[in-house]
Formats: sequence, structure tokens, C-alpha cells
Amino acid sequence: MTSLLTDEELAVRETARSYCQSKLLPRIVQAYRTENFDPSILKEMGELGLLGATIKGYDCAGVSSVAYGLIAREVERVDSGYRSAMSVQSSLVMHPINEFGSEAQKEKYLPRLAKGEMIGCFGLTEPNHGSDPSSMETTAKKTSDGWVLNGSKSWISNAPVADLFVIWARVVESGEKGKVRGFLVEKGSPGLSAPPIKNKIALRASITGSVFLEDVRIPADALLPKSSGLGSAFSCLNNARYGISWGVMGALEDCIARARDYALERKQFDKPLASFQLVQKKLADASTSSTLGLLASLQLGRLKDQGTWAPDMVSMMKRNNCGEALKHARILLDILGGNACSDEYHVGRHVANLQVANTYEGTHDIHALILGKAMTGVQAFS
Amino acid sequence: MTSLLTDEELAVRETARSYCQSKLLPRIVQAYRTENFDPSILKEMGELGLLGATIKGYDCAGVSSVAYGLIAREVERVDSGYRSAMSVQSSLVMHPINEFGSEAQKEKYLPRLAKGEMIGCFGLTEPNHGSDPSSMETTAKKTSDGWVLNGSKSWISNAPVADLFVIWARVVESGEKGKVRGFLVEKGSPGLSAPPIKNKIALRASITGSVFLEDVRIPADALLPKSSGLGSAFSCLNNARYGISWGVMGALEDCIARARDYALERKQFDKPLASFQLVQKKLADASTSSTLGLLASLQLGRLKDQGTWAPDMVSMMKRNNCGEALKHARILLDILGGNACSDEYHVGRHVANLQVANTYEGTHDIHALILGKAMTGVQAFS
Amino acid sequence: MTSLLTDEELAVRETARSYCQSKLLPRIVQAYRTENFDPSILKEMGELGLLGATIKGYDCAGVSSVAYGLIAREVERVDSGYRSAMSVQSSLVMHPINEFGSEAQKEKYLPRLAKGEMIGCFGLTEPNHGSDPSSMETTAKKTSDGWVLNGSKSWISNAPVADLFVIWARVVESGEKGKVRGFLVEKGSPGLSAPPIKNKIALRASITGSVFLEDVRIPADALLPKSSGLGSAFSCLNNARYGISWGVMGALEDCIARARDYALERKQFDKPLASFQLVQKKLADASTSSTLGLLASLQLGRLKDQGTWAPDMVSMMKRNNCGEALKHARILLDILGGNACSDEYHVGRHVANLQVANTYEGTHDIHALILGKAMTGVQAFS
Amino acid sequence: MTSLLTDEELAVRETARSYCQSKLLPRIVQAYRTENFDPSILKEMGELGLLGATIKGYDCAGVSSVAYGLIAREVERVDSGYRSAMSVQSSLVMHPINEFGSEAQKEKYLPRLAKGEMIGCFGLTEPNHGSDPSSMETTAKKTSDGWVLNGSKSWISNAPVADLFVIWARVVESGEKGKVRGFLVEKGSPGLSAPPIKNKIALRASITGSVFLEDVRIPADALLPKSSGLGSAFSCLNNARYGISWGVMGALEDCIARARDYALERKQFDKPLASFQLVQKKLADASTSSTLGLLASLQLGRLKDQGTWAPDMVSMMKRNNCGEALKHARILLDILGGNACSDEYHVGRHVANLQVANTYEGTHDIHALILGKAMTGVQAFS
Repeated sequence: MTSLLTDEELAVRETARSYCQSKLLPRIVQAYRTENFDPSILKEMGELGLLGATIKGYDCAGVSSVAYGLIAREVERVDSGYRSAMSVQSSLVMHPINEFGSEAQKEKYLPRLAKGEMIGCFGLTEPNHGSDPSSMETTAKKTSDGWVLNGSKSWISNAPVADLFVIWARVVESGEKGKVRGFLVEKGSPGLSAPPIKNKIALRASITGSVFLEDVRIPADALLPKSSGLGSAFSCLNNARYGISWGVMGALEDCIARARDYALERKQFDKPLASFQLVQKKLADASTSSTLGLLASLQLGRLKDQGTWAPDMVSMMKRNNCGEALKHARILLDILGGNACSDEYHVGRHVANLQVANTYEGTHDIHALILGKAMTGVQAFS
Repeated sequence: MTSLLTDEELAVRETARSYCQSKLLPRIVQAYRTENFDPSILKEMGELGLLGATIKGYDCAGVSSVAYGLIAREVERVDSGYRSAMSVQSSLVMHPINEFGSEAQKEKYLPRLAKGEMIGCFGLTEPNHGSDPSSMETTAKKTSDGWVLNGSKSWISNAPVADLFVIWARVVESGEKGKVRGFLVEKGSPGLSAPPIKNKIALRASITGSVFLEDVRIPADALLPKSSGLGSAFSCLNNARYGISWGVMGALEDCIARARDYALERKQFDKPLASFQLVQKKLADASTSSTLGLLASLQLGRLKDQGTWAPDMVSMMKRNNCGEALKHARILLDILGGNACSDEYHVGRHVANLQVANTYEGTHDIHALILGKAMTGVQAFS
Repeated sequence: MTSLLTDEELAVRETARSYCQSKLLPRIVQAYRTENFDPSILKEMGELGLLGATIKGYDCAGVSSVAYGLIAREVERVDSGYRSAMSVQSSLVMHPINEFGSEAQKEKYLPRLAKGEMIGCFGLTEPNHGSDPSSMETTAKKTSDGWVLNGSKSWISNAPVADLFVIWARVVESGEKGKVRGFLVEKGSPGLSAPPIKNKIALRASITGSVFLEDVRIPADALLPKSSGLGSAFSCLNNARYGISWGVMGALEDCIARARDYALERKQFDKPLASFQLVQKKLADASTSSTLGLLASLQLGRLKDQGTWAPDMVSMMKRNNCGEALKHARILLDILGGNACSDEYHVGRHVANLQVANTYEGTHDIHALILGKAMTGVQAFS
Repeated sequence: MTSLLTDEELAVRETARSYCQSKLLPRIVQAYRTENFDPSILKEMGELGLLGATIKGYDCAGVSSVAYGLIAREVERVDSGYRSAMSVQSSLVMHPINEFGSEAQKEKYLPRLAKGEMIGCFGLTEPNHGSDPSSMETTAKKTSDGWVLNGSKSWISNAPVADLFVIWARVVESGEKGKVRGFLVEKGSPGLSAPPIKNKIALRASITGSVFLEDVRIPADALLPKSSGLGSAFSCLNNARYGISWGVMGALEDCIARARDYALERKQFDKPLASFQLVQKKLADASTSSTLGLLASLQLGRLKDQGTWAPDMVSMMKRNNCGEALKHARILLDILGGNACSDEYHVGRHVANLQVANTYEGTHDIHALILGKAMTGVQAFS
């Protein structure tokens, strides 16, 4: 793998790994226990250039998509919640501003988002429309000097601590429902609230909320001018999914390393667990899966930078890598025996997180049907 | 299934179900969140005759083994932690006293344990010997008027709230290590401590602890006189495993019911999730597995009462039912989509619990090797 | 298991086992190689009372449904093709005559079918309608003195050697398409042909054919008078599926026995394969699956005789037992290493056969959707 | 994928695909039915430069390892047996001569083998030592003017039609058993025989035999001078395994294409099978697996040519790709419904072949333990 990376990519990986292992790992157990997200983490990441890292200009690092993947992998090696916070900032907030925003919007927001001085969130999913955003109910009504937003969003990462909300809404004009477009809504806008969703059983180190929009009035220039239909939102999701495909491999690699170490140290029947065939098979299967998943994501990153990737490839890699990471993390957890139940062994936390990663931004089944449609031309989900 | 139960069994099931749904279900979410076990639950169960229910006499109900299984199933339909607390009391504390205790011990302890006035725990597993109790290090040294116990036990359910500790220790005489035997140690014995293990990632509604024995002096009559070697401890485990095989089916049935209801109510792409083939397959698979697991456990219960069961059968059913319940609960969890992450949907809690149930009292792999040995005559784990 | 059988059932099992092991096993390898079905096998079975065994009267044995299951299991322990030939005769030919035939039809055909002097086949499936018989195209047109049948059937077991064809056709009257009914067509009827389908890659010891009906004129009394709609045909299928659920368990048991014996005899690295954990796990998994499958089919048989079974239960057991038998047979095949490729080791033949058993009379997926519908009330396949 | 190939590789792929589809595909069904291998196929491949294609000089093509993989993939897209015949010739006969042979041996044999004028086979596996060649019993005894070989080999592809036998034997000197070395034995040597193994249930389009060596006297220059221990034989196996990892992906791709086409054409319940979610999931899973497997094998080929590959990587890819191809081919077979049983639909043949590919040259389990050892440092199979 290393032989396929550029020097810059290796340096980014080293920076990310060093930060994650020395600064994030020591606080994760406590953060997860108490369901607490420390927003200064995004600031720390920002200082190291890890946010919106593929964007060129606007104080962003301008590195390759593979480098971005490497960052996601290192962060999720510690915890999926931290990676989610980072993914949202980079792929779901900074990316749409960079892609669909005006020059003024870019200049206003990107540098602060890049430094983590400002936290963003991405409001697409609605309470009744998880897998099917095309049924979106949130509306944007044009007024003389701007827009009025109404609706609600659910399961929005970063929302309760967000300074900037990228809100997707359906434009209503003269009673007709029209195209979906993206809007930038700042914290504090009257009518906007983002209460946290607590007592999550996974991703407890990230913060998640609902977003309620009640007659939220925003100026005309809050519209992302180049956003055009759900396709724009999906472009963001595809960027995020690409990062997820890397991130979950980091979580899996951490599970492999921890299970392996445990198996070497723990003795039963006077032999290390590592000498059991049933244990070795678990390790071999997981290692194979992580090798293949990483190689394929790397290849996808290269195609992305060449401009020759396709959404189906992203569906394939998001689905495969999440599903595989979850499957193998669960199997590896069993190696820990009774200690699997203690939160200090980390693997159980990855397992809980990965179930969510396998579900959000397109469930395993939805991506199967996206791929199925790509292969057969037949839509099977509606 | 119902047609295979006696009237008494049906009545026991109804009592248990009614209690569990009306009294346990309403408190489980909060208990799990706060990792709190309310000892009065055992008292409530005791009042209904649900503890040590198969024992004849000593204020116990004296019902069939199938009735005992039905109780376990109803309790675990709410939560595996509550069932664990009950299993320990019934199969791992009351059973050995009834089976290996003196008449005086039975009369002293069984009625109070049956009423839940006294809580028991079972100290077999040691920190370094999870799957291999034959390497036990805890010792019992004979003194002029009793015994001195030294050692430590780990992952002991009920221990921090226990009034009575069934401790398994290896008798040391004249420097030689001898047979393992069981002892009854009362709370408050000098040298005995049982601190809780906190921050568990599963079974949070039950309480678990370590047990430390430092020169704990107990009288001669604290020995379970008919306990004889590890076989006696294993007899307890087999009783408990039998109950687990029923219990986990209850958890799985709850997951099926909740996932099914969710699938019927939740609409995506204008259709209920229940109309998706991929969802129906998940439900069909899980339902098949629960039907077969219950039928086989019922048959095992009948053989148990006829005195014709064999330990291998218990290994088969404990392993199969735990493994299947876990596998299908995980698959069903995906039906909940993003809501899977909320603790109010219950399925995620079952999933976390079942991973532990699949591991304790003989991991899935250990039971595979027990079965493998039974089939081939060849020992493959040491 | 044995403890759950009556003396009569044990005797039937012994008769069947003895015949199958002594008479069928020695000829199966050659029969499979040369794709040859010896019709005298049905005569031999008939002499032992193994055909239509649950029918009372008409020279049939009149045993329990469990006894019928035990016969299917013993026959398929040798080969699925032989069991298929027997199933067709018993469940798909004799059953409908007994259930939907006139007294004259019963007297004319059942005794000869019971003795195997006459061979029957069941013509339901059509070339374009495998999983969906309700789209049947074969027609029966009423004439002054009988009926004229037109259409074609495909993948019909026993057809090329059949003396009697149970043909399902849609009655056409005055240009309207009506109800599906069953007809008894004798070999030699002008317009009837049944060429064999050769070069099958499984079930090569049974014979399969197409059935072509071109203006086949049959007398009025060829109609099964009590047949009424597709439900009648499905009643036959449910009987056959019940038998399949037993049969495939026999095939799986044979695979387990052979793989176990091989593992004990074959040494690698100076140890028998049976001492490998990875091998023991395969055996343990398969053995668990066969135990649960048999217990559940036995219970289904009891309900059948009590008249309290439901079609969904049959779907569950046909699907589960076929799917499980196939899954585990494939895994066990790997134990044989390179010798798996030789036809003298039998397991590979079972694997090929079981794939077909898993597909015919309702594929694994179709039965999933039947169960899904039963659970949710929602039809997901059309 | 295509974007990662050189122009030369694309040309090789085109040559191979065109030949395989136009010349091999039309004869495979009949060849498989009749268990007949036509040796002229190797001549045809030789004419196109497809044999020993990575060797530089000696009339070989001298293409990259990726090109070799592409050839294997195209051949196995038709049939695994043809690919096996080609693999043996290229990786197991020409490779060891090129790697361990003298200049004279290379000049004598390589050009004729490259043209397919001579057929070779590889005699390593013995009847009692499938997974464990280190227990080899075949001996080579030094004489005054050469060697005497004694022993037997089993499951040797190409043997019955081979002109040249690469035989691995343990050198016996002064009664001591020593190092394993390779020898070139020509057909017709007295004492050498290679009877075919017939009635195989898979790979029927290739020819397989035993090899018996009874006092076979060969000249001194029949020794491969640079062969040194089992490591030399393993070097050949690793080359072959690398090719297998490509080949089986071709078989899987063919299964995907055929199942997809069938699903689009075949209608049930008035809809193409391709519109069923359960069918789309099967296609999506298989397609994902083939994409990842091919990308990883390609990367392995690049490392091979850079000289930086490691045996563990080969174990990983041989194991993963065979296991995945087999798993998905079996699932895809079910899409064909009843027609799966006809040999004209090809998928069933691939399924049977892939089971063998998953077993030979290191079973799935053995490679798991090789990987397990690489990860843990602990040997678990002896």
C-alpha cells in the first residue's frame, strides 16, 4: 500500500496518525462514556490542515483525494464519531460551498471552516425520509429580499454545535413545488434551532441533533447559487461516502490490531489464543478484507482526482467497506471473550459505530439497489 | 408451539409475560442508560415464584424445565441483563445448593433465595481463565475448623449486590493441589470484597463485579458437601446454559416483533418498508431461526426432565440459539435505519446484550470444539 | 430423536434404511455417472410399502406422516434423485388421486401406483412459469364427451417413464379462461409426448422430461372431480415439500457421516484432519443444523396428522432444511480436499442435488417472500 | 480497470478474449460432458503466445505479470479446466525450467513448451500429502550416472497427456533423507506411468492423472540444477496461485454476465427477474467482489514485476478470489431457477470448477493459517 502513495500523501498520513494517536485516542473512552463531543477537536484538526483538505485555496491544504482518505482512516482508527465530525465539515459543508458557492461565500466561510473556527453541519435528511431524500418536505419560499425556510431535519451530525447550516430545501414558487437547492444558514437566525439527540447507542463521541426551521428568514445571498437539484446534494454525499469508505477501514484496522495483540497476550489452555485455528481464521479474514477495501478506495481516489469516477463506484465502495468493516469487527470482538464487554478494549465501540456507518449516507441495502439498477437498468426500490 | 405446552406451563408463561411487560419493560431504558441494577427486581420475581422454579420444596415452585425456559424467555424478551440476574440466582446458586448442599444448607438458604430476599452469585471464572476453568487458581486450604479461601474471580454477575457467594476453589492439602469444590460464602466475611465492574458496553441492566478473596475464613459447613470436582460446577453451567438457550430466543422474538412493526409503519418511497423484498427476507430468516431454536430447546427441556439429556445437547442449544439470536438481531437492527441508533428502539440493546450471551458460559467457538470432540473423539482446544 | 418415534415409525425407518443402504447405495455412483434411472427401483420400493405410504386403504401402508418423512430421509441419504422419484409418486401423484379423485379413479390407479407397477408424474410447471404457476398457459377445453388438452410442461420428474400423467390445466369455456383443474392422462394418449431432458448437472439418477400436449383428447372421467383451482395443486406441493424437508436432512446426515469418517482417517501434518479446529467447527455446525431441522420437521409431521399444520410452516421447513442442507453440505465437501472431486466420495453429488432441491417446489427466495407475506400481510413478489 | 492497463496488456487481453470466446467457448459444453481434454488447445494457445507468456526469450512473449493474469482470466471465463491446463504449462512447468533449469534445459524445452508442441505436468502432490508436501515420500537416489526415482503423485493436471514431467522428489543419500529437488522426466521413461483419473465431478474439461514412478532411471542432467528444497516448488505454486487469483475472477465475471442476462430476459409474475430486489442484491454483491478481487490481483501483479511481492500476498489473493468467486457463483446460480440444472447455462459448471479451484494449490483453510501465521508468528497447523 505504502508504495502507492506519494511523498505528500505519506506526510499527511503521518501528521494525521500522530495527532490522532496522541491527542484523540487518550480522550475517546471518556468522551464516549459521557456522550460528549469536544468542539475544540475541529480546531485542532484545522490547525493541522486536516479540514477541507482537498480544496485548493482559501487556506485549505489542497492535497489529493487519497490524502483526504488517509486522514479519514487515521481519525476513524480512533473513533468513527470524530471522523464523522470531520467528514461533515469537509465533505458536506466545505465541499458544497466550494463547489456550489459564490466567490463571496467561499471567501467568507471557507478559511474559518478550514481552521475549525467555525463548525458546519449538513441538513438534508428529514424525519420521514431517510433513504429517500427526493420526498423532501422542507421548503424555501422566495421573498422580496431573500428566502423563508420551513421544515425539519433529523439525525444531523454537528448540528447542536454548528455555526453554519447547509440546508437543503425545495423551492416553492407560486404554489408549485420545484427544485431542491442548498442554503447557508447561520446560527442564531430567528426560527432556527438544533437540539441535540441524546442517549445514542453509537457514535457517542460525535454530537447529533435535529434541526427545526420555523419561518427562518435568510438573505438572498444565502442561496448556494450553483446548487441545482438533489444532484448537488448527492455530489456532497458522494464525497462524504468516499471518505467513509476510507474511514471505516481505519476502524477495522484498529480492531484487527487490538484483537491480534489480545490474542497474542491472552492465554487459555496454556497457549496464546493466537495459536487457535479459529482465531487465526478470524484475523486472516479481516486482514484480507481490509487490504482489498483499502486498495479499492485508493484506486477510487485516483479516479476521483482524474475526474473519471462514477457515483456507482462510490456506492460500491461505501457499501462494501462499511459492510465488511462491520462484519469483521463483530467477528474480531469475539476474540476478546468476556473482556469484549469492557469499554476499555475499544473494539466494541468500533462495532457499535460501524453499524451506524453502514446505515447512514445510504444503507447497505439502498446501495445494493443503486448498484443493481446500474447493472440491470431496472429500478427496484420504488 | 403452544400446543406442546402443559396447562401449568402456559400459566407460568402468562405470569412471567405479564410481569415482564408491565413491570420490567417500563424501567429498562433508564436502567440501561444509567447502568443501574435494581435488586428489588429479584424480590418481585421471587414473589411470583419465578426463582429456582424447578426446585421441588423449600418454597420453590417445582415446575418443569420447560416452564423454567419459558420464564427465561419472557424475562429476556425485555432484557438479557434481567434474565442473567435471574439465571444466576436460579441455575447457578439455588441449583448447586439443591444439588450439592446439605439439608441444613438447603433449609437455610433456598427459601430466602426463592423469595429474592437474598441474592446469590456464582464465582467460577477467574481473570486469567475464562474458557478454561480447569486452570483455576483460587485455593481452599483446610484448617482445624473450616477453610481459608484465597483468589479472585472476574465478570461475576450479581456479585456487588450478593448476599451469598457460591465460590469454586481448588482444595490444597499438604502442598498438593487437589479437587475443585464449591463453598458458600456469606457477604461480610472478612477478606471478601466484590467491587462492581462499571462502564460495560452491554448487559448494563445487570450488575457485574470482581470477587476478591483474601484469607477468607469460612466454617467447615460452608462446603457444599456433595460438590465433587469441576463436574459439579459444570452441572450448574449446563443448567444455566439451558436457560440461556430459551432466554435469547425471547430477545430475538422481541427484535422480530419490533422490526416488523417498524417495517409496517415506516414508509420510504411511498411504501412501507415491509413491502421490500430485502426486508421481508430478513424477517423470514429471523422467524425461521426462532421457531427452530424454540422447538429444539423445548425438546431439550423434556429430555432434561426425563433425565436423558446430555451435556453435548446443551452445548449445541446454547451455542446455536445464542449465535442465531445475535446474528438475526443484528440483521433486524438494520431495518430500523437511522433510528437504530436511538436507545428507545430496543433492538440495539438486545444486539449488545446478545454478543455477551454468545460469549459467556462457553463461547460460540468453545462449544463448537466441545461438539467437535463429541463427534470425533478428538480434543482440539488444548 | 429416536425417543420421539413410535414403534411403527421405527420399524418403517429400519425397513427403509436397510433397503436403501443395501439396494440403492451400491448402484448410485454408476447411475449418476450414466444419467440413468432404473424404473424397477419404484417396484422395489412398492414391494416394501414405501410408496404412498400415508394413504389408508388401496393397498397402501397407512402410516403416519412422520413415517413418510423417515422414508424420504432414508432414500435421500443415498440420493436426492431417488427420493424425488419417490416423492413424485407418493405426494404428487397418489396424493392428488386420493384427495381429489373419484372412488373409481382411486381403485383403478392407487393399488398399481402403490406397488410401483405404474409410474406417475406431475405436470404443473411450465417453461415460462417456474415460480409463478398462476400464469399457467396449458388449457383444457370441454368437448361433448371429454376434454382436449393443449400446452407444455417442463422439468417434470419421472415424465419420460411415466404411465400416468397428472396434468394441471386451465379450463377454457366459451373463450373465457377459468379455473385450474387436474386431469389424469395415460401414457400413449395421442398427442402426448414426454421426451427426456438430458445432460443435467444434478439429480442425474432421476429422470426428468418435458411434457407436450397437442390436442390430447381424454374422456370426461379423466378429470379429478374434487380438484378445484390452483389450491389443489398447491396441496400436493405442500405434501411434497414436507417430504423434501425430511429428505434433504438425510442427504446432509450422509455428508456429515462421510466427512467425519474422512476427517478421522485422513492425516495431514501427522494428525487426523479431525483434530483441526477448523474441521471440527464445520462438523459441529452441520450437526447442529441437521438436529434442529429434523426436530422441526418431526413436529410439523405431528401437526400435519393432527390437521393443524399451515402452509406457511411447510414453506418454512422446506426452505430452511433445503437451504441449510445445501450450505453445510458445501462446507463439508471442503473437508475432503482434492478427493472432493472424485465421484466416489458421494458428498459432491449431494451438493449438486441439494442445489436443485433448494430450487424446485418453491425456491429459497420465493419461500422467503411467502413467509414475509405471512408475517407482514404484504405481498412482495408481484 | 482498463485505465490501469498498458497498451500491450490491452492487446494481450484482446487476443486472449477473442480466441477464448471464438474457439474455446463453442467446445466446452461437449468437452465437459464427455470429460474430454483436447490437447490441441495448448497448441492453439501456443501459437498465440499465451503459454509461458512472462518468460523473456526462448520464443516466449515476455509480457508483464498483469498480462499473464489477463490471459488466465480470459481462459477461465470459458472454463477453469482450460485455465488449469494453461496454468500448469506456464507456471508449473515452464516457470521452474526457466527459474531453476540449466541453459541447456531451457533451450531444449522452453520453445517447444511455449508452442504447445510439448505438454508438461507438475508432480508435487502425493496421495497422502495434499496440504502438507513437506512429508513427501517420493525419493530420488543418486546413481553413478544419474538418478532413480520412486514414488507416486496424485491429482496431477495434464499428466496423462504430458510429454514432460516436472517431478519433485526427496534426495536419498547413504540412507539419509535430504533435500527436495526437481527433476525433468520425459514421457516414455521406463517405469513411468500416468493413468487418468476419470469420473471427476468438476474440471472435466481438463485431464488429471496419477503419476507412478517405479525405478525410473533418468540421466544426471535431468536434475533442475538450481532447484533447492521445497521452496523451489513453492515458488512455482506461488506463480500458479497468482494466475488462479485472476482466472477465477474471469469465471465469476462470466457467471455475473450470464445471471444478469437471464434475469433481464426471464419474466416471473409479469416482471423480469432483474426487477426483484433479492436478485439485484445478488448481482451487486457479486459485482463488488469481482471488482475488488481484480483490482487487488492487478496490484499484486505490479508488485510481482517490481520484485516486491511476498508469498503471504499470494496466499491472500488466491484464497480471497477463489473463495469469493465460489461463494458468489453459487448464489448467482440460484438466479437461473430450474434451468440451473441444465449444463447449457454454464454457471453450474463454473460452480463445480470453482470448488476445486478453492481447494487445490492450498485450500481456503490452509491459506487462512498461512496468513494467520504471518500475522501472529504462530504456526497453527501442525
